[in-house]
Amino acid sequence: MPMSTRQEHDLLGTREVPATAYYGIHTLRAAENFNVSRARVHPELIKALATVKEAAARANLDLGYLPAEKGRAIITACQEVARGELADQFFLDAYQGGAGTSTNMNVNEVIANRALEILGRPKGDYATIHPIDHVNLHQSTNDVYPTAMRVAAIRLLLPLADELAKLQEALQEKEAAFAGVVKIGRTELQDAVPVTLGQEFGAYAQAISRDRWRLYKVEERLRQVNLGGTATGTGLNAPLKYIYLVNDYLRRLTGIGLARAENMIDATQNMDVFVEVSGLVKAAAVTMHKIASDLRFMAAGPRGGPAEINLPERQAGSSIMPGKVNPVIPEMVSQVAMQVMANDNLIAMAASQGQLELNPFAPLIAHTLLESLAMLAAAARIFRSECITGITANPERCQELLAVSPALATALLPYIGYEKATEVVRGAVVSSRSIKEIVLEKGYLTSDELENVLTPAAMTKPGTVGAVKQGIKEKGKA
Amino acid sequence: MPMSTRQEHDLLGTREVPATAYYGIHTLRAAENFNVSRARVHPELIKALATVKEAAARANLDLGYLPAEKGRAIITACQEVARGELADQFFLDAYQGGAGTSTNMNVNEVIANRALEILGRPKGDYATIHPIDHVNLHQSTNDVYPTAMRVAAIRLLLPLADELAKLQEALQEKEAAFAGVVKIGRTELQDAVPVTLGQEFGAYAQAISRDRWRLYKVEERLRQVNLGGTATGTGLNAPLKYIYLVNDYLRRLTGIGLARAENMIDATQNMDVFVEVSGLVKAAAVTMHKIASDLRFMAAGPRGGPAEINLPERQAGSSIMPGKVNPVIPEMVSQVAMQVMANDNLIAMAASQGQLELNPFAPLIAHTLLESLAMLAAAARIFRSECITGITANPERCQELLAVSPALATALLPYIGYEKATEVVRGAVVSSRSIKEIVLEKGYLTSDELENVLTPAAMTKPGTVGAVKQGIKEKGKA
Amino acid sequence: MPMSTRQEHDLLGTREVPATAYYGIHTLRAAENFNVSRARVHPELIKALATVKEAAARANLDLGYLPAEKGRAIITACQEVARGELADQFFLDAYQGGAGTSTNMNVNEVIANRALEILGRPKGDYATIHPIDHVNLHQSTNDVYPTAMRVAAIRLLLPLADELAKLQEALQEKEAAFAGVVKIGRTELQDAVPVTLGQEFGAYAQAISRDRWRLYKVEERLRQVNLGGTATGTGLNAPLKYIYLVNDYLRRLTGIGLARAENMIDATQNMDVFVEVSGLVKAAAVTMHKIASDLRFMAAGPRGGPAEINLPERQAGSSIMPGKVNPVIPEMVSQVAMQVMANDNLIAMAASQGQLELNPFAPLIAHTLLESLAMLAAAARIFRSECITGITANPERCQELLAVSPALATALLPYIGYEKATEVVRGAVVSSRSIKEIVLEKGYLTSDELENVLTPAAMTKPGTVGAVKQGIKEKGKA
Amino acid sequence: MPMSTRQEHDLLGTREVPATAYYGIHTLRAAENFNVSRARVHPELIKALATVKEAAARANLDLGYLPAEKGRAIITACQEVARGELADQFFLDAYQGGAGTSTNMNVNEVIANRALEILGRPKGDYATIHPIDHVNLHQSTNDVYPTAMRVAAIRLLLPLADELAKLQEALQEKEAAFAGVVKIGRTELQDAVPVTLGQEFGAYAQAISRDRWRLYKVEERLRQVNLGGTATGTGLNAPLKYIYLVNDYLRRLTGIGLARAENMIDATQNMDVFVEVSGLVKAAAVTMHKIASDLRFMAAGPRGGPAEINLPERQAGSSIMPGKVNPVIPEMVSQVAMQVMANDNLIAMAASQGQLELNPFAPLIAHTLLESLAMLAAAARIFRSECITGITANPERCQELLAVSPALATALLPYIGYEKATEVVRGAVVSSRSIKEIVLEKGYLTSDELENVLTPAAMTKPGTVGAVKQGIKEKGKA
Repeated sequence: MPMSTRQEHDLLGTREVPATAYYGIHTLRAAENFNVSRARVHPELIKALATVKEAAARANLDLGYLPAEKGRAIITACQEVARGELADQFFLDAYQGGAGTSTNMNVNEVIANRALEILGRPKGDYATIHPIDHVNLHQSTNDVYPTAMRVAAIRLLLPLADELAKLQEALQEKEAAFAGVVKIGRTELQDAVPVTLGQEFGAYAQAISRDRWRLYKVEERLRQVNLGGTATGTGLNAPLKYIYLVNDYLRRLTGIGLARAENMIDATQNMDVFVEVSGLVKAAAVTMHKIASDLRFMAAGPRGGPAEINLPERQAGSSIMPGKVNPVIPEMVSQVAMQVMANDNLIAMAASQGQLELNPFAPLIAHTLLESLAMLAAAARIFRSECITGITANPERCQELLAVSPALATALLPYIGYEKATEVVRGAVVSSRSIKEIVLEKGYLTSDELENVLTPAAMTKPGTVGAVKQGIKEKGKA
Repeated sequence: MPMSTRQEHDLLGTREVPATAYYGIHTLRAAENFNVSRARVHPELIKALATVKEAAARANLDLGYLPAEKGRAIITACQEVARGELADQFFLDAYQGGAGTSTNMNVNEVIANRALEILGRPKGDYATIHPIDHVNLHQSTNDVYPTAMRVAAIRLLLPLADELAKLQEALQEKEAAFAGVVKIGRTELQDAVPVTLGQEFGAYAQAISRDRWRLYKVEERLRQVNLGGTATGTGLNAPLKYIYLVNDYLRRLTGIGLARAENMIDATQNMDVFVEVSGLVKAAAVTMHKIASDLRFMAAGPRGGPAEINLPERQAGSSIMPGKVNPVIPEMVSQVAMQVMANDNLIAMAASQGQLELNPFAPLIAHTLLESLAMLAAAARIFRSECITGITANPERCQELLAVSPALATALLPYIGYEKATEVVRGAVVSSRSIKEIVLEKGYLTSDELENVLTPAAMTKPGTVGAVKQGIKEKGKA
Repeated sequence: MPMSTRQEHDLLGTREVPATAYYGIHTLRAAENFNVSRARVHPELIKALATVKEAAARANLDLGYLPAEKGRAIITACQEVARGELADQFFLDAYQGGAGTSTNMNVNEVIANRALEILGRPKGDYATIHPIDHVNLHQSTNDVYPTAMRVAAIRLLLPLADELAKLQEALQEKEAAFAGVVKIGRTELQDAVPVTLGQEFGAYAQAISRDRWRLYKVEERLRQVNLGGTATGTGLNAPLKYIYLVNDYLRRLTGIGLARAENMIDATQNMDVFVEVSGLVKAAAVTMHKIASDLRFMAAGPRGGPAEINLPERQAGSSIMPGKVNPVIPEMVSQVAMQVMANDNLIAMAASQGQLELNPFAPLIAHTLLESLAMLAAAARIFRSECITGITANPERCQELLAVSPALATALLPYIGYEKATEVVRGAVVSSRSIKEIVLEKGYLTSDELENVLTPAAMTKPGTVGAVKQGIKEKGKA
Repeated sequence: MPMSTRQEHDLLGTREVPATAYYGIHTLRAAENFNVSRARVHPELIKALATVKEAAARANLDLGYLPAEKGRAIITACQEVARGELADQFFLDAYQGGAGTSTNMNVNEVIANRALEILGRPKGDYATIHPIDHVNLHQSTNDVYPTAMRVAAIRLLLPLADELAKLQEALQEKEAAFAGVVKIGRTELQDAVPVTLGQEFGAYAQAISRDRWRLYKVEERLRQVNLGGTATGTGLNAPLKYIYLVNDYLRRLTGIGLARAENMIDATQNMDVFVEVSGLVKAAAVTMHKIASDLRFMAAGPRGGPAEINLPERQAGSSIMPGKVNPVIPEMVSQVAMQVMANDNLIAMAASQGQLELNPFAPLIAHTLLESLAMLAAAARIFRSECITGITANPERCQELLAVSPALATALLPYIGYEKATEVVRGAVVSSRSIKEIVLEKGYLTSDELENVLTPAAMTKPGTVGAVKQGIKEKGKA
């Protein structure tokens, strides 16, 4: 039995659309034109567009541009789509030409047909409710699409910031828990002066707190919308009262402090604010990649690496090496972080190639930024819950590596100077003996003096170790 | 009613798996650990892995490592998965830690359970057929996963090359069709000496032919596999006869001229070959972006731009500007091209951060490369069928723009020299008069001479226009 | 005659250094190790390091760690280097291993030898003034180098912001000057509803003002320094009084509101703040590339493109096409912008690969960021002075293109609806007739009505054209 | 006393040029327009352009377009510039608009004035020898510049390939030297089955050999030149005989197998071949970054890391930690590698934005590619001579780490199966006991059997350890 269809037409002609479809001919053509990837338009963008449409419908209803019954049906349909209903009607490829027109029309068509259904009218009865003349009334893709991009971005940005806040807390808990674990520091992967494992997690927490703060702050940069600017930002065909009202409604519906951009022509064509946001998201990705790599280094082992910490075991690591457990969560985090870094590159490339009154690559920018935001939030969440919170320290191993470290000789610097200290270190490394032995042999300090100076825990704090307590004459002192 | 389950265990403990699931506990854990994005493991990778498993099963069967009945069941299961069956069992996130172990185990588990089913045994009866001891026998993720990456990449690379060949043909057809359309050339977007529209499409075809050729050639670089290398490429636990046989079977099953890498340790850890392939795919993307941009420029209008060509109309272009039709296909192509460019950046970033015997970011590399290959092939296909083949020329418009172009004065160079020719052009542009008028006014050439020299069509070919026919003394001639 | 030399030694042995050289053995070895590129360490980094050294010397002098005479000589030497003197002593390659140690030692050695010279002592008399024990006293490369990076970045960031402010002003002047030039808008390079040329420059000015503002704001993010943190940020060997005093002095000497980072361990190892700054610099580059591309499009011609504006002529454009003048300044700007975009990618890549207590790639980050800042400032200055300020409009050409544009039909939308308006446009384009003719022919509006509705200048403002004045019933009105 | 000057003019007017300058007014204007960075045009590009000019002069001389004396003077001047003489006359910024016109005119002017000098004529006597009418005769920037880019790229590509060949040899020497050093393998930084240090260096050598081979092969892709294509590749104004002859001469003068591109229009506008070359250079950079990172990991220590190898000491590592020596050469190599990776991104971005008959960003592409080639060759040379050749192994340390590694249990797999082997490993790790102890305790194998199976050296080769010798029944065997 053939699929039941209805006929729709556009400026190119007539097409059969499945009778049950809420979408229409514009969606159909777009689906054919852009069947190019496995990626679909991000659902947050659809939801945000539906809310923008609701704001427009409310404004048009208030001002008498939409009759009450039709207006109310449209509003109800908008709310449903904004809640994520009818999701299967939004299947367009994320890579689409037309600067978002296809996604806008997809939303217009679904809302129109759902509104018709609410009114008890058949789908496709556009004389009653028209996707463009009613649902898209006083709008252009060029104002609703960039507006929805901002709304969707804010809605994904704040959860990301929240996840980073939680990640920061988890790191701070480890900072406290590991405050007493003194260990070797490493600069350029070579043994350096001691730190505590707590200090290391404290540094991670501090970096993540910066990332969190940046993202909270940048949210306001996304609040300037060009809603009411229509095709090129000049606002042609959008009544002034409508322009005020639609923005007012959108602010209320979203609960976000949105404001109409002073210069809507600029806000229509320029995508730099997404570059700005992406740049800061990337900074967070950079921090997360760094932390993930450090954890993998410190957990390397169990015998052939530092093994200073244990990552929680999440799954069997090898199909051939029995008992092997790999740092799969940090590895996943790093891959997401690299993806976000590459995404940032892509967003800048696309944003820089806008032309005159519009950027035709807005769909790519929207897709890429929303993916970055969502992925990094998920990665931060998993990083915290499946890795950070379960990390334990191996204090004995930390102590074992520290005890033999030549970097402890740095504490001697104020007493014997750089050149003699160098000599001591070289002697120790070459002969596999301890710093202490060499110093005593050379007679630079007494055993008592050494005991006070070579104190790893004290070396993790500012100042000269032993100086005050011992009154040893510091060499540098005039 | 609660979902019926079975119990499975691994080194971390016991978990309930849905009784109907072909996947098992390793897949379950991975699904929980890596629920981070909307992207799933590429189906071509799953299919390729299944074929690798079939080759291993056949080798193990031949050598007596697998009993006949079990071996045959495994082989049948492998074939089903390799055909794309049971696709819903492969739902792992593309961004996964573990260097591919989770995907390998997913395949092992599904094949084991399907083989058990074939044997009439219950799912989970791993004493009979074990995902690791039987399906993964003599294998490690670290050899089968990179091998499958290569097989999948080749399988997507050749269709891309084929699509580029077809695109080249379509461009060549336009080269022929537009051979007689003389038009203004443009360098740095400023009017330059004439070309034919056919020559422009010929240049596109030539560039695409290079891309096609590169991709055909690079396929052989992917043929060196590390199958049999097991965990680090040394081949530990893989019997020598098995190593020969499994590669032989894989070659036969795939029909690809695969060869065991001479140095399997290298082939296990290094991902440079994917960087190489991606770099060439990117070159094709660069060419396609350039062509797409040119088409958008030449089709700009209908009044405010060159409008030298018409792109086929694919969909209505605006929800507010009636009758507007946009270059949506080239815009889509450009976005895919930019994505491929960013992907290349990502692949290099990930490949460069391999560590010692393995690259933990192989899943990211696999995902990104396979997406690039598939997307660019689809974009090339759509570019050809929905855009290039339908392009028509506006010869009158081309002629109109050419007639008034000051760049025609270049043909005067051999007769009056650079400085006088400059003077002529400046005079023409300032006074909005033609080159011809100014030359006659200045008395540099006669009207007859001019008629032979200022011949746009002749200017699209090598040599001095008019020289031979006219015998006008060329200035440069000593 | 052989070059006169002096002997210096380090932990690797003894080397001959030119007797006249201010630099010493550490610089010599670094010059040999890193002779890899044409790029030298950025002079702003050298100057900033010298100022950091002065702050340290002053603190050490005050606290009695340096005797007065030596301290004063060191301070004088620091001031000279900070003014850019002895620049030929700083010739190290920008690409250097060691996380900046070589550059730090280069500065230490030159200051030590210059201070010795001031004291009337021979170069190399390190028993009197030692590059490490005196000049580097209480410092580590790992605290002074990142501190100097921040100081240098701020010093180049503010001029960039200033140049963007001037660029904004120049664009605003054009906004005013071109306020009356009505022209065709273009979305996706297709004719769209009218804008004024002034509005277009206003949009550019607005975007640049955002970039300027971002860069002014982000400056404060660079003010947290890790000076006093020594090797790993713990402050080992740096007396507490010194830590307070050195930061106080640096604040005074630079006039920048620097503050010691609360967590110096974090500030030593993490480079995310440079990623943040670079990301915003990139946003400015994206804007500039977009503007530069638009200008090239609008100036394309003189006959084969829009030619709506004239760029000031800066140089002859072709060695073969006489009279050709190219948009060389926008082309230069775009190349610098792309370089800044690629630099941002590089900075993130390097920053993400820090390890534990340090990022070994700090020299690459420093080099790349300082180049981005300096180049983009220069590009903004040249863009303004050699291009923007000299742009003139071609109002007749703008009018000519606008008059025939089908996009004017958008103004009909409120009166005849989307579908009829589409029909009108299609008719006009196909028959090369005007919108007006078709509307009259179809009888949709009267000639009087049309005159009021099809008013391009009015179409550049919000609202429905003609509605109020005409009282024509708007179709959308319920 | 004021500087003595001469007057020159172009289409924009008259300017004073220093009387002693070989460069002229076009260079002067370009220097003013593009004073934007610290980077200068690459000298190899200047040299290549001079050689192209010599080929043109010889062809023009042979064909009678240049009189003998003038032609010979021009040829001599070309040869001088091609040898690197008069280098101080080529000071233009690398970031220049005009698609290379300024660099071409710089070369034209210097050659013209040097030729005049040879003829005993004053500089600026362009009536005798004109930079355009004589030196640039039958040429356009648009054909000579891309041709010179290819020549310069080939000249830097081959030395890079040679350096990689030498690097490969150095790695192979270590492969042989370290063949007997058995050590722990590491996958995902976790202990894995054993490898020899020699095998690791062998894998590096193999990867570098692929890189070398790729670069040798790709050289031929650069041999297609558009010399004779003039402004847009059509060859307008270039006599056919000249076109053949100039290419012939260029082939002879360079000794490179250059060929005129079949489609010169394509070769004029498309930059994909540079994308291709850069992509392969990047692959080499990726390999080098990976090797450099591995070396830093294996040399990490001396106490807190694996310390399996020693890198040769190149310089003191710290201004505060005495005796510290850092892996500065690998760190430098990695930074150069990352720069090359970012450069590749930039080249693709610039190449993709060519427009119609030309790519205005050719100078950026030329600069970036030539820098990549030269830098990576230098980095490869230094990597080899200052690092690789001096590496020594710490076999005792390797043995020490290996002895306690649980990964040895993989050898048990064929005898006791995956699940029991997992149990053994878990037991060993938890109790810090050896694999052997646990196996014996569990009674899985006898002491004799174990001695034959747990043989690290044997585990670095393909196959099952102990199987043949012992005749122990393999579990997997049916």
